[in-house]
Amino acid sequence: MTDDTFRPTELSDLECYEFLRSRELGRLAYHLLGEVHIVPVNYAVDDDNRLIFRTAEGSKLFGITMNDDVAFEVDQLLGDEAISVIVRGRAHVLEADSAYVAERVRLRPWINTPKFNVVAIDPNEVTGRRLHMHRPWLSMRG
Amino acid sequence: MTDDTFRPTELSDLECYEFLRSRELGRLAYHLLGEVHIVPVNYAVDDDNRLIFRTAEGSKLFGITMNDDVAFEVDQLLGDEAISVIVRGRAHVLEADSAYVAERVRLRPWINTPKFNVVAIDPNEVTGRRLHMHRPWLSMRG
Repeated sequence: MTDDTFRPTELSDLECYEFLRSRELGRLAYHLLGEVHIVPVNYAVDDDNRLIFRTAEGSKLFGITMNDDVAFEVDQLLGDEAISVIVRGRAHVLEADSAYVAERVRLRPWINTPKFNVVAIDPNEVTGRRLHMHRPWLSMRG
Repeated sequence: MTDDTFRPTELSDLECYEFLRSRELGRLAYHLLGEVHIVPVNYAVDDDNRLIFRTAEGSKLFGITMNDDVAFEVDQLLGDEAISVIVRGRAHVLEADSAYVAERVRLRPWINTPKFNVVAIDPNEVTGRRLHMHRPWLSMRG
């Protein structure tokens, strides 16, 4: 087993979006009054490759309204292999007549909120990696 | 089944740290030149309840050196229940004589990097929630 085994493999854009469509839980990082915050989000990908999620009023909505620069991460860990896809982009609240999108995509909110806004993230950059993890304390014994 | 079923349960500090200690993969959100970035990180918790991870030179290290305000999220999805713990705090590179910490905690890097720095996050705020997810498109049929 060579060092190459542990080198990450870059995913293509197509592979990134296939992976994003196959998952439903990601983490949103956003600005809030000069701080960086992170929160788990149930999301879906619409036909225009936008990430769609619902949110009630709160710090998340306030944060992205004040600064629309966001990052989003989705990953999956399978044994010693991991896949991670990271999206950077701009978030904006969809207007009422656009909110129908949320009815068409597979979304289940983490919390049952009767009132909600629908947010879309337009990706500027999508990167994905397939990683082979290892356990250094094992290799150190060698 | 009442609406209360879906209300999140707050975790105590003790439960948050127990959960953090039981996991090894989290996501770090950090500032980078006015942008927010997010990256998956293999971490461990040391005896002082600090989050410890290793990183090579790169944007992550540069970002936290320029602005030490970070957020960190760890979650677990089990069927319709999810646990998510969020840490906000300050990140700093441990000096060489403190880096021994990384030898004492259970860390496996996502990538095999021969040179690395050891970073500690001192938590300012730790919050955790146990969430019951639901599928709105099923309840809507009712």
